Amino acid sequence: MQRRHRVVVIGAGFGGLAVVKGLRDEPVDVVLVDAHNFHTFQPLLYQVATAGLDVDDIAYAVRGIFRKQRNVTVRMARVTGVDAEARLVHTDAGGPIEYDTLVMAVGAVTTSFGVPGVDEHAFPLKSAADAVALRQHVIGRFEAASTDPSLVARGALDVVVCGGGPTGVEMAGGLMELFTKVLAKDFPQLDVRRARVVLVEAGERLLASFSEASSEHARTSLAKVGVEVVTGTGVASVTPEEVVLGNGDRITAQTLVWAAGVRAHPLAATLGVELGRGGRIVVGLDLAVPERPEIFAIGDVAADRDTPLPQVAQPAIQGGRHVARQIGHRLAGRPTEPFRYVDKGSMATIGRHEAVVDFPGGRRLSGFLGWVSWLGLHLVYLMGFRNRANVLVNWAWNYLTYDRAARLLTDDPPRRRPT
Amino acid sequence: MQRRHRVVVIGAGFGGLAVVKGLRDEPVDVVLVDAHNFHTFQPLLYQVATAGLDVDDIAYAVRGIFRKQRNVTVRMARVTGVDAEARLVHTDAGGPIEYDTLVMAVGAVTTSFGVPGVDEHAFPLKSAADAVALRQHVIGRFEAASTDPSLVARGALDVVVCGGGPTGVEMAGGLMELFTKVLAKDFPQLDVRRARVVLVEAGERLLASFSEASSEHARTSLAKVGVEVVTGTGVASVTPEEVVLGNGDRITAQTLVWAAGVRAHPLAATLGVELGRGGRIVVGLDLAVPERPEIFAIGDVAADRDTPLPQVAQPAIQGGRHVARQIGHRLAGRPTEPFRYVDKGSMATIGRHEAVVDFPGGRRLSGFLGWVSWLGLHLVYLMGFRNRANVLVNWAWNYLTYDRAARLLTDDPPRRRPT
Repeated sequence: MQRRHRVVVIGAGFGGLAVVKGLRDEPVDVVLVDAHNFHTFQPLLYQVATAGLDVDDIAYAVRGIFRKQRNVTVRMARVTGVDAEARLVHTDAGGPIEYDTLVMAVGAVTTSFGVPGVDEHAFPLKSAADAVALRQHVIGRFEAASTDPSLVARGALDVVVCGGGPTGVEMAGGLMELFTKVLAKDFPQLDVRRARVVLVEAGERLLASFSEASSEHARTSLAKVGVEVVTGTGVASVTPEEVVLGNGDRITAQTLVWAAGVRAHPLAATLGVELGRGGRIVVGLDLAVPERPEIFAIGDVAADRDTPLPQVAQPAIQGGRHVARQIGHRLAGRPTEPFRYVDKGSMATIGRHEAVVDFPGGRRLSGFLGWVSWLGLHLVYLMGFRNRANVLVNWAWNYLTYDRAARLLTDDPPRRRPT
Repeated sequence: MQRRHRVVVIGAGFGGLAVVKGLRDEPVDVVLVDAHNFHTFQPLLYQVATAGLDVDDIAYAVRGIFRKQRNVTVRMARVTGVDAEARLVHTDAGGPIEYDTLVMAVGAVTTSFGVPGVDEHAFPLKSAADAVALRQHVIGRFEAASTDPSLVARGALDVVVCGGGPTGVEMAGGLMELFTKVLAKDFPQLDVRRARVVLVEAGERLLASFSEASSEHARTSLAKVGVEVVTGTGVASVTPEEVVLGNGDRITAQTLVWAAGVRAHPLAATLGVELGRGGRIVVGLDLAVPERPEIFAIGDVAADRDTPLPQVAQPAIQGGRHVARQIGHRLAGRPTEPFRYVDKGSMATIGRHEAVVDFPGGRRLSGFLGWVSWLGLHLVYLMGFRNRANVLVNWAWNYLTYDRAARLLTDDPPRRRPT
């Protein structure tokens, strides 16, 4: 039997899933490779970090998603490199995988920009494990301060969030809500009202990719709930108990959330092709790599030649669907088409009853209506009925009771049987 | 201001929570000490281990439970010993705690009975972390076998469960269901039907504390779903890929679940009082320690002089309520009363539509009706609306779709900031 055209997709994020789904009816064998056996709904990671949701509310088993799609094989393995000459994907489990077409959907990784102390002491927020580690750390600091009150003066309860994009804004708002509505009741002996959340943004305004009105609304809303917003200066260095800003200010804080910057996944560099800003793979109009047309790149790892697309879910999803169609065109002998991104707007939530939404064309929404739109959209996009129902239960519970069930410190190292 | 009578309760299991709740209206200060900041609903640990539920479905933040009870302080710390002479509880965080009355509710720990290899290679099932580690291991073995099929012959998919009590029976049934209904679909390239689940019980019958009819029903029900039941022999030794039974049989299996035996928590021995079978603290009729009447012991760490009580939730809960009342009696100058355990029956589930229930007085229930009773009782007992609602959603989902959402391998080591 002749081998069918094999498409290898690296990465089970929004882009990778969209490609695989789009190839449902094509005469290809698809191999989806990811280091994890689940997809992570990244826009809600901050909810996990602030104890509103638990990991399995925002993660979904990849094998479950593609159970009924016959032409897909899921391979859980870490990709160690791509040999573009030999058309091989090297992995740490089960050997290399040959491809006829390769889709790079590996996304972005956090970068410290070389700021001293960030790699050692800051908490990134790119993966489910990051979110859990951050949650455990924050609540662990409260537990520690409740037994040793001297830790309060040493910043045990204080958090600096670096980066004023949607992730930073949502983290800052979510943390303040966790502090004032939940932990203040859990720790009556601590003066939680004095706990600081400082949001630091090097640029001149928060949510730089949003309209100025939304930026301003986010700033005043955050200030209203008690978040201190500092713009125009970045983080210069960090130690376990102090964050030093670019303007020389020193903030005593035992937690630094690093939502400041990402760069392309280092796998991009193993292709040996032209890389753009932030190490992203430069692609042509059809999202194929000019030097290697059998390789496509989408989402946060791909660089548009013109205006860079925002590093959120929509460009990855739309890019994934586009690439699946182009693979179909090529197999049918048709020419490929240019990718056209359809802007569906941007949204960021600030807390209870408060979110900003920018629609394409300049219309905006904020306050309660913005928040309800945000809630609805995220529920619709979350994969699978079960997760949606659980998320709804968790959110309803949080909303009605100001309680958070996910604030468990379950960090015993797992016992692993050596094999 | 005069210090109020201080009751220190060690352990936030069923017994500890019952004591603290029972002291709600007593003129005492209560300090509840536990190494974790959450209560674990142990009867459903096997559901976490078999991917039916996630940890936060069966765990509940202790501070949340006692938010409205003014006379309670929660202290998250590991107790390192009790100085009964000085009336001090030593901890690893925040220094020692003085008590006027101490309640030992520390429960039991897994014991290997000295069987070679068990400490290194077997998976216990006493804590949330145990359950997650076991789940990750089992699903991880399937993932490994899907990339390297030679692992199948080396027992990657095969599991031995040692111990035929309720935990072992429920684990064996739950694993078989996970294999045949979920993993068989997730891994179509593996011949999951050949995966073995072997339940080994050293005694002559499963569920020794149940009626003979229920034992027999459990055995035939397990056999019907494909579990191999071996009674009358125990596990003699274990290596990473083999389990050797007492009768000399060798089973190739990379997973051994150790549900065979528990003994009292080692803290019991630090009291310096008489210990009974399995290292349990010998208590008087009122559950106080005869040599140290200011110390009470309840649940799995306490030894009745006569017939030992089953090591399940009910004796701990009833004992906890009893001890709270006795503390009230003493403070009011009244004599203490003897504890009378009210047997409410026993239940164990075997799988979809199948459970056995023994009521006091000899009535029994099994099959679908038993299963529905089991389901209802566990939902009612699970703490807090939110968990109940989530558990219901998860169970309904599992029931309707044969899917399991909790099968995520999220075992990246948490990043921890040194402090």
